[in-house]
Amino acid sequence: MYIEKINSPKDIKNMTIAELEALAEEIRKGLMNRLSKKGGHFGPNFGFVEATIALHYVFDSPKDKIVYDVSHQSYTHKILTGRKDAFYLDEHFGDISGYTNPEESDHDFFNVGHTSTSVSLACGLAKGRDLKGDKENIIAVIGDGSLSGGEALEGIDFAAELESNFIIVVNDNDMSIAENHGGLYKNLKALRESDGSCECNLFKAMGLDYLYVSEGNNIGKLIEAFKKVKDIDHPVVLHICTEKGKGYAPAEKNKESWHWHMPFDIETGKDIYSREGEDYGSMTCDYLLKKMKADKTVVTVVAAVPTNIGFTEDKRKKAGKQFVDVGIAEEHAVAMVSGIAKNGGKPVFATHSSFFQRTYDQISQDLCINGNSATLLVNTASVYGMSDITHLGIYDIPMMSNIPNLVYLAPTNCEEYFAMLDWSIEQDKYPVAIRVPCNGVIHSESTVDTDYSELNKYRITRQGENIAIIALGDFYRIGEELADMIAEKTGAAPTLINPRYITGIDTKMLEELKRTHTKVVTLEDGSLDGGFGEKITRFYGSSDMRVYNYGLKKEFIDRYSVDEILKKNRITPLQITEDIL
Amino acid sequence: MYIEKINSPKDIKNMTIAELEALAEEIRKGLMNRLSKKGGHFGPNFGFVEATIALHYVFDSPKDKIVYDVSHQSYTHKILTGRKDAFYLDEHFGDISGYTNPEESDHDFFNVGHTSTSVSLACGLAKGRDLKGDKENIIAVIGDGSLSGGEALEGIDFAAELESNFIIVVNDNDMSIAENHGGLYKNLKALRESDGSCECNLFKAMGLDYLYVSEGNNIGKLIEAFKKVKDIDHPVVLHICTEKGKGYAPAEKNKESWHWHMPFDIETGKDIYSREGEDYGSMTCDYLLKKMKADKTVVTVVAAVPTNIGFTEDKRKKAGKQFVDVGIAEEHAVAMVSGIAKNGGKPVFATHSSFFQRTYDQISQDLCINGNSATLLVNTASVYGMSDITHLGIYDIPMMSNIPNLVYLAPTNCEEYFAMLDWSIEQDKYPVAIRVPCNGVIHSESTVDTDYSELNKYRITRQGENIAIIALGDFYRIGEELADMIAEKTGAAPTLINPRYITGIDTKMLEELKRTHTKVVTLEDGSLDGGFGEKITRFYGSSDMRVYNYGLKKEFIDRYSVDEILKKNRITPLQITEDIL
Repeated sequence: MYIEKINSPKDIKNMTIAELEALAEEIRKGLMNRLSKKGGHFGPNFGFVEATIALHYVFDSPKDKIVYDVSHQSYTHKILTGRKDAFYLDEHFGDISGYTNPEESDHDFFNVGHTSTSVSLACGLAKGRDLKGDKENIIAVIGDGSLSGGEALEGIDFAAELESNFIIVVNDNDMSIAENHGGLYKNLKALRESDGSCECNLFKAMGLDYLYVSEGNNIGKLIEAFKKVKDIDHPVVLHICTEKGKGYAPAEKNKESWHWHMPFDIETGKDIYSREGEDYGSMTCDYLLKKMKADKTVVTVVAAVPTNIGFTEDKRKKAGKQFVDVGIAEEHAVAMVSGIAKNGGKPVFATHSSFFQRTYDQISQDLCINGNSATLLVNTASVYGMSDITHLGIYDIPMMSNIPNLVYLAPTNCEEYFAMLDWSIEQDKYPVAIRVPCNGVIHSESTVDTDYSELNKYRITRQGENIAIIALGDFYRIGEELADMIAEKTGAAPTLINPRYITGIDTKMLEELKRTHTKVVTLEDGSLDGGFGEKITRFYGSSDMRVYNYGLKKEFIDRYSVDEILKKNRITPLQITEDIL
Repeated sequence: MYIEKINSPKDIKNMTIAELEALAEEIRKGLMNRLSKKGGHFGPNFGFVEATIALHYVFDSPKDKIVYDVSHQSYTHKILTGRKDAFYLDEHFGDISGYTNPEESDHDFFNVGHTSTSVSLACGLAKGRDLKGDKENIIAVIGDGSLSGGEALEGIDFAAELESNFIIVVNDNDMSIAENHGGLYKNLKALRESDGSCECNLFKAMGLDYLYVSEGNNIGKLIEAFKKVKDIDHPVVLHICTEKGKGYAPAEKNKESWHWHMPFDIETGKDIYSREGEDYGSMTCDYLLKKMKADKTVVTVVAAVPTNIGFTEDKRKKAGKQFVDVGIAEEHAVAMVSGIAKNGGKPVFATHSSFFQRTYDQISQDLCINGNSATLLVNTASVYGMSDITHLGIYDIPMMSNIPNLVYLAPTNCEEYFAMLDWSIEQDKYPVAIRVPCNGVIHSESTVDTDYSELNKYRITRQGENIAIIALGDFYRIGEELADMIAEKTGAAPTLINPRYITGIDTKMLEELKRTHTKVVTLEDGSLDGGFGEKITRFYGSSDMRVYNYGLKKEFIDRYSVDEILKKNRITPLQITEDIL
């Protein structure tokens, strides 16, 4: 076993190509051990083993600096830079994050989890180097799926203006998470088919020097190519072709479902844990398919994460022209749905809360100033969502709800969610965003409203006295528990309110509460600063009402336990009861 | 005069080329009348007269739909679509905005003022058309400067996937606001020099069909070209070369300073109103030039608006490699400055408040999660800033201040601003944004702190009692007037506080205020929802303290009078005194 002796990149510098190839297979065993038991980004890591070995063989990390786009392909890099235990020893799985992380290693330069950032970040490292008069190599590794993102294209366009060493490795595996979308992929195909020689070349058209390596899983060829560009005195693109998921037949065969994979049985490739029960992804997909069938002007738009709302390949086919995957291009998606609505279509765009961050300006300028009636479905917008520091879903309320003209809705159960979605698609007055529930599929015990056109009308679900609990979206359930606990402790039932609208306050109801209530508690599933509760507090600022806001502290959190985070922020019925009574 | 008979595009359909050429000159007279007296976007409009006439001659607006990027070149379009009075009759100048505006005309489809959005918006119109089964032409007009913006590149890449009529007119005048930046401009040059025939072609590399028109100010040639693409059944780029500022010698000669121009004397081209006194633009530039000279690791970064911080051409030259204009590429700029800071540089990136909206995700992910010590200068962030609905500077506090790890500072005077800037550049712990004052250059009457490393430490500038006024940034002056007025009316001087930090509260000071104060007033120069004051109110939510928040209502406002807006929001010392006493 070579891997036993590898503790830093310098340990591979004297190995032969044959030895490095054997090492690659040992590394795949480590990847397999972790991924089969813990899950994670399978395809990107299996496809980039050889390239990572070759990079570390040729360049001198961390003096030479490698920046990985999304960094979901950085597992081999972690193995080679002192973190192999997290792959071979199960008890060390928790030592590392799934992305590059400067707190783990000097070989990691950025916490990265969003796409299309590597070239710009690396341009910064290069400019910093040039200002200081240093000489190291700066390398950006970017997957082809990320190329369609605006930040990447801005970065590539700018990179041509650097007049010093800068190496962009384009890891071309002909895939995004799902299939690639966008015209530039035709050019990558033409380049692959002409062995990099076709005259029309996206990278050259953006002012860059260009080299092509067809065998991107061949360590010898890669070493040769990297040596060619090492210490180069100008920016260059090295276009390498790799196979996503290479080395594991099921992943080579079904690239989309093995991009990220749950724990699986290595023999069969089958999931170890079966997912049971309802989920909002497939329910949303089924609803939209039915809706689109009935109305040819309804269209579903996604940005490279179609299964986020249940659109697996067969369902995408079923939807036909009424389903659009723009690829990684969230800015374009939001502007486009504004245009679709303007010209009589009924568009629904869905992505993760964290990825909507790419589109603040488009939501404000392209959509809300123009008041077009597109629907945005905000997924995993919750403390119960993804827990990686780069994928948190707890900032969309401060980010989106303070944009004028937007109607941002927070359903508290399944029936309310679909009623809101249906209302939003059919109305033509407002840009609407809906915070898709993220805490399991709860069904309503009573009827829900079907018309949400009277904006900012809260709903009292339990009429009580003294204390009013305004519990938003996913935290409505905590509100229910809290109401029960207060009733039990004080003998007086509090009022429970489902506010439904994040983007405005029901001044009439809040005013009336003053007559029979002395305390208001707000609960929101997100960061408190700039959020929903503060608007309630502002309303009562100069009155006698005591207001208590519960939500998350403004901070970046990483790989947290939900229970611990809720406790730390005192968002449990018991803690709140202690605070207010 | 032909113009007298032109009230809608149909009125030009039967004119000869010679007549249209005469009309072009009459239109330039109208543009000149408005621009010389009122100011506005000169170069873009003078360069696009012929192309607009040809567009309206060939296409049938508003059935055929033209979307103008930034829409600062849409004056001729306004003249031809029923709004000519706003150019020829001085008393009608106020009838129109400087951008396309659906409230003015059915020929305008979007309120647009930010760059790089036209292709995506038009893709949406095309998709809406296709869903309905309609057949009109959809045309996006985009200037070359806008091409480097990520949203535009995402849109162009996606457009290739539309399998129906879609026409992108690339208006190439070889200029952004200042000179163009980025590798793609080398390709535009190669295309111009080869009469559109060179094999390596950015647009083809993005999967699009392509046509070239060298004489973009020749109505006959343009009509011929537009006729060729009218009713085309697939997406196509029509690359036309125009001259920015065409028809007015000073503007042809100095394209940068005539991109947007103040009122001027037509004979001499000289400004009618001279700007006197100090301004933060040139003062910031002088400070940075000095700083950069003394320290080779300091670097100033802008995104196509260099004079925003005083970097005119001569000063850019002076700064040399320590000045970087990334072109229209704000996302790239923010990620890059994070990388520069990571590799030992001291970067300062400046742009308008409204343009920072493009970079929410980059501020959060690329910069703040990574905690790199870049400085962001947020300009025209104020109700006193630009008053066009698309350029408002009143949302940056809700947008930026709720992002964890960012230190957002609000100086109240000149000396404090430069002290904060200097501290920010020299420290290496935090990403820092500074809200550049926007209400004239006020000098401090007392010494200002030089060290801001103890975060969220507010400063009591007048110790008083009963009422505390927390007055942020530009509104500190209103705070002073208010304090005077309260003292006068009540005989008791209130406490006046300069909070300095937007991103956090001084809990110790706020706690202490409880002892001798019963009321707190907050004042902020921006939208109240999600802003600064609400954080103070939340702190006091469950206490006896009465809190009154003053700032702007969450709404899009357009071409407003500052005095009226302040009054409407009750932000005058007299109104506030009425409210709280």
